[in-house]
Amino acid sequence: MRRVGVLTGGGDAPGLNAVIRALVKRLQAEKIEVIGFRNGYKGLVQGEFQVLHGQAISGILPRGGTILGTSNRDNPFNFHGEDRFEDCVRHAEALGLECIVVIGGEGSLAVASMCVERGLPMIGVPKTIDNDLHATDQTFGYDTAVSIATEALDRLHTTAESHHRVMVLEVMGRYAGWIAVASGLAGGADAILIPEIPFTLEAVAAKVNQRREAGKPFSIIVVAEGARTPEGELVVKQTVAGSHDPKRLGGIGQYVATRLEAMTGLESRVTVLGHLQRGGSPTAYDRILASRYGIAAAELAINRTYGEVVVLQNGIITHVPIKDVGGKVRPVPVDGELVRAARAIGISFGDA
Amino acid sequence: MRRVGVLTGGGDAPGLNAVIRALVKRLQAEKIEVIGFRNGYKGLVQGEFQVLHGQAISGILPRGGTILGTSNRDNPFNFHGEDRFEDCVRHAEALGLECIVVIGGEGSLAVASMCVERGLPMIGVPKTIDNDLHATDQTFGYDTAVSIATEALDRLHTTAESHHRVMVLEVMGRYAGWIAVASGLAGGADAILIPEIPFTLEAVAAKVNQRREAGKPFSIIVVAEGARTPEGELVVKQTVAGSHDPKRLGGIGQYVATRLEAMTGLESRVTVLGHLQRGGSPTAYDRILASRYGIAAAELAINRTYGEVVVLQNGIITHVPIKDVGGKVRPVPVDGELVRAARAIGISFGDA
Amino acid sequence: MRRVGVLTGGGDAPGLNAVIRALVKRLQAEKIEVIGFRNGYKGLVQGEFQVLHGQAISGILPRGGTILGTSNRDNPFNFHGEDRFEDCVRHAEALGLECIVVIGGEGSLAVASMCVERGLPMIGVPKTIDNDLHATDQTFGYDTAVSIATEALDRLHTTAESHHRVMVLEVMGRYAGWIAVASGLAGGADAILIPEIPFTLEAVAAKVNQRREAGKPFSIIVVAEGARTPEGELVVKQTVAGSHDPKRLGGIGQYVATRLEAMTGLESRVTVLGHLQRGGSPTAYDRILASRYGIAAAELAINRTYGEVVVLQNGIITHVPIKDVGGKVRPVPVDGELVRAARAIGISFGDA
Amino acid sequence: MRRVGVLTGGGDAPGLNAVIRALVKRLQAEKIEVIGFRNGYKGLVQGEFQVLHGQAISGILPRGGTILGTSNRDNPFNFHGEDRFEDCVRHAEALGLECIVVIGGEGSLAVASMCVERGLPMIGVPKTIDNDLHATDQTFGYDTAVSIATEALDRLHTTAESHHRVMVLEVMGRYAGWIAVASGLAGGADAILIPEIPFTLEAVAAKVNQRREAGKPFSIIVVAEGARTPEGELVVKQTVAGSHDPKRLGGIGQYVATRLEAMTGLESRVTVLGHLQRGGSPTAYDRILASRYGIAAAELAINRTYGEVVVLQNGIITHVPIKDVGGKVRPVPVDGELVRAARAIGISFGDA
Repeated sequence: MRRVGVLTGGGDAPGLNAVIRALVKRLQAEKIEVIGFRNGYKGLVQGEFQVLHGQAISGILPRGGTILGTSNRDNPFNFHGEDRFEDCVRHAEALGLECIVVIGGEGSLAVASMCVERGLPMIGVPKTIDNDLHATDQTFGYDTAVSIATEALDRLHTTAESHHRVMVLEVMGRYAGWIAVASGLAGGADAILIPEIPFTLEAVAAKVNQRREAGKPFSIIVVAEGARTPEGELVVKQTVAGSHDPKRLGGIGQYVATRLEAMTGLESRVTVLGHLQRGGSPTAYDRILASRYGIAAAELAINRTYGEVVVLQNGIITHVPIKDVGGKVRPVPVDGELVRAARAIGISFGDA
Repeated sequence: MRRVGVLTGGGDAPGLNAVIRALVKRLQAEKIEVIGFRNGYKGLVQGEFQVLHGQAISGILPRGGTILGTSNRDNPFNFHGEDRFEDCVRHAEALGLECIVVIGGEGSLAVASMCVERGLPMIGVPKTIDNDLHATDQTFGYDTAVSIATEALDRLHTTAESHHRVMVLEVMGRYAGWIAVASGLAGGADAILIPEIPFTLEAVAAKVNQRREAGKPFSIIVVAEGARTPEGELVVKQTVAGSHDPKRLGGIGQYVATRLEAMTGLESRVTVLGHLQRGGSPTAYDRILASRYGIAAAELAINRTYGEVVVLQNGIITHVPIKDVGGKVRPVPVDGELVRAARAIGISFGDA
Repeated sequence: MRRVGVLTGGGDAPGLNAVIRALVKRLQAEKIEVIGFRNGYKGLVQGEFQVLHGQAISGILPRGGTILGTSNRDNPFNFHGEDRFEDCVRHAEALGLECIVVIGGEGSLAVASMCVERGLPMIGVPKTIDNDLHATDQTFGYDTAVSIATEALDRLHTTAESHHRVMVLEVMGRYAGWIAVASGLAGGADAILIPEIPFTLEAVAAKVNQRREAGKPFSIIVVAEGARTPEGELVVKQTVAGSHDPKRLGGIGQYVATRLEAMTGLESRVTVLGHLQRGGSPTAYDRILASRYGIAAAELAINRTYGEVVVLQNGIITHVPIKDVGGKVRPVPVDGELVRAARAIGISFGDA
Repeated sequence: MRRVGVLTGGGDAPGLNAVIRALVKRLQAEKIEVIGFRNGYKGLVQGEFQVLHGQAISGILPRGGTILGTSNRDNPFNFHGEDRFEDCVRHAEALGLECIVVIGGEGSLAVASMCVERGLPMIGVPKTIDNDLHATDQTFGYDTAVSIATEALDRLHTTAESHHRVMVLEVMGRYAGWIAVASGLAGGADAILIPEIPFTLEAVAAKVNQRREAGKPFSIIVVAEGARTPEGELVVKQTVAGSHDPKRLGGIGQYVATRLEAMTGLESRVTVLGHLQRGGSPTAYDRILASRYGIAAAELAINRTYGEVVVLQNGIITHVPIKDVGGKVRPVPVDGELVRAARAIGISFGDA
């Protein structure tokens, strides 16, 4: 019997289970058995796995997280200081695996690329909530994250309006502002601050004041966690004020809220969405996209086409070499239609 | 001051208000005033309208329906038997309107096309929950309808599994099965019946029985309201059994459930989603798509480009002549990736 | 080791899994093992069961349905025509069960009462979406059903208002109108029709017309499936028009919509919520109430107190003899605060 | 024509609009006109108001926030340093108001009590998300907050399980832990930390470790913002580490997560729900409860019964003197059924 392995690596994203389910269903139809490694590469290194029978994948389509578990940092080539790649090869051979499907972000796919180079056949499925992977037009989990952020903005709107406040929502997006732009558009934000467009507090405060003068003494600001002023690092330094852990003691959202309150005189509050963006049931859109990725990865495995990553390009699922995936972020085009649309209806990016 | 009119026609769809809001916001920035006609073409015929100031569009982004009201059947060229087109022209001229933006389905856009031919400048924004409009790759409201249908399937799953039942969900789609295919994929359906692929009850029953034999004595069937057997009309005749109103006394979903229960011995229940698919708050995706349409229509109005419909093609918002929109349905490609993906994970279309 | 059995009977309700989980968790703490019978009394008759270890109940709190499966009609005293009670006793004894916890509606509890009389120790947990069980102030699943119906009303509102329609929502409640009254209040209905208060179409049409005259040419009507005119049966006869299956070919909701359209001239549409009311994830309220019931049933089992049903009375979980539960419906008090509150804000019950 | 005023004070809560709507609807039926003051007591002091016609309250039932606006700190007896009570009286008299209905928390009701004492007739409606008001069994908004916190826990669960993490959710509850206990029960928390029961980190870490040893290397902790160790203030001091604003730079949730990670070696993450708990559409339960409060306040106004607050006691809406409302928090009973139920299914309160 033919056999294929699968593992999920990096942060969880809504849709991981949909990929796994579609992969297993498609391979089962070809009588190919699927072995799931536990907790990302760690399971491959340590030989922890389970056979993914039909029962294992029953009912998982609407569920968040990953039934396989994941791991953020484990790397077979530097596993707690050791190169454990040979253990991976040994486990794969012992199980008779033809290849291993890796569902993961840039880090996990870079590891997969090295595995392929050193002779362990792998197939990649791209994953990042942030939607900033260079090789693919859209990643699963992103639509869900945008939906959750939009729902949060709907909630903050009523408080902002009732209290005449500036409500700041900090969303994910360290290197690219996709979630911020999409949820800001969908949630009726007044300003959207993203890494791609450095902002000044003066411009944001001007937008808030302009609204107040027009009889709307409240504003909604969406801030990607990677948003920055033209001076960049300065912001972070001011924010953390003697702390050694900027992420934990108030990020960019807190900074923006604190400063806007001082500059506009309007009460300002920050909400950091954090982990709420990546948990829970995927949207219909993400379930379909994730299923398509899983099926496409299965087709590659069936046809013994290794070293490729399945990607979405112009609405079609296709594939590109794993080694071409990494190293480049896909930013929000600053002159693209989304940003222009946002500006066209009066949303400020804090740059003027 | 420049002035532009707007009206919404046909069935309501989530995102109508987002189109209106974006249109008004974009035109306001150009100091163009927007006049909204009440209840579709009826308001244009009868001269019922309101000025859409900023206050009128405040807070409408997340709301379903249309703040302008709509009307399903009114047509200025045959308004209760009379040609009232000249009244429309008169009202438009009296208000000093440069053009009128019509947000509507195939019927409303066909009327707009006739208006253009007879000299009343119009711009179209396509609308149909069913996503089956020929000229555009996607319509707003569709993603919301798919989300609602998927959520319904999630609910029916627990009952199906607990009771060992066949649960049939009838969704919209008289001429094309987009909602059925997408929600069936996202909701884990076992069979999807759509107008594009005639089904036999024998094939559906075979799928249900095959699952039972595999230890899963329950199944989920999604049926588009326009699904049909190869014999077509016969089904409807059997269904209505002496009634004069097939839509009201049990449609195709009821027919499928009744017959499957007889054929498989498993209890079968139907749920007709009906109006629940088109009401309520639009998804983030639909809010963005609708806003993009609204902005694009505003750009046409600003540039005095009339007689065009804004459309989405390959991810880009562009425009085509109104007169090219009608008459052709955009079916689900029966050999396209979506259908193949569904088949690849074992979903039956009742055709084998 | 002490051992206790559990089964779920009758229609599924959101919260069944929460009861099972709390029961098992509480009994595990006392080192009592729990045996779950499959598919209601059928599993007890036929000896189909599973041991409910910690893994079996992991993650089930937010899930609808019942992991044990259920069965609507099976009765050990008349199991396909045979009295199979002795098989139940035999299986219980073979497993060394001290008692069996039955989570079910009036029918399932009546069977439990007979079992107790004939010497098989049982404990009951009441279940009915309809909230109409005599012995208890509230049943789990009801709050979820009300929430779903309210969400449906929110959706129908936008369509009603946009289209100037009468939207009729038929909800559950054959003998009592709890869901209709609560969702009607929460969803802003204009009329609520329930079994406890016979309605006339004239009174409902008068309400619709009065609203139209006040500038609101749309109305929302909630109809419990058991609502009736003073003539009662007549309605059903008119509805089914020669059919042998009134439930399937348009119920009371369809009747009301059809007649209101004729009487008021306003387009009227019906939505039958059906199974959507009982599936899916329970509300926080229902999860807590169901957990409390499960814990209380466990306490009875620990203390070897049999023949009792756990109930909610004045906010406190207590218990009453199983034999006192059946035979009486708990109607909505027609002069109680809820109905008076509804009338106070202008909601019609169709009786004046 | 008789006239009554209304204002909303303090933090917004889901259901405020439902109270206003029911109040106006009930009074309209008696031909009593309602005047709404803008932004809490500020509008009463400054004479900013609007007449609440039918149109003003149309469609507000499902909306969060308050259409009247609110204000957190304004007090007529100390309005930016001045006693402006006489302005309130003057405005009330000029408008011919018989009384003013104040919908607010302990602070707003204390002000109302002083107004009553000094001769301005007032009626109170209690409001607090935290559900900790002494005089009433439940406040509107609480059920919605619990629902939102429970949904957040559902999302965090999938991440906790996929990543083998400790996920900490900080919810509201400075003086009482109602939201924490209810959402913790409904969301399947492993530990719940509330002001009423001082916790030790050792006990919480022991719970986490015990789960890990039982094969569950992840845990969910709900922390009320007012939770504290037996040493109390010490915690806050350690948390803020030189800051002057403990609320902003990491509260109790952050403290618990940071320390648990150090003590257990498991990655720990905190999510602060914050304003997301109080915004957005109220649950069906809260809409009904809020409507009942609004109707009861209207009845008092109709009968010219002033100086009273409407309250819920044993399931019945009744009223008590405003002056009896303040000064006492209603804590979660540490030996009550809720806490005992939570303990019974293995939830730790960090006290053993």
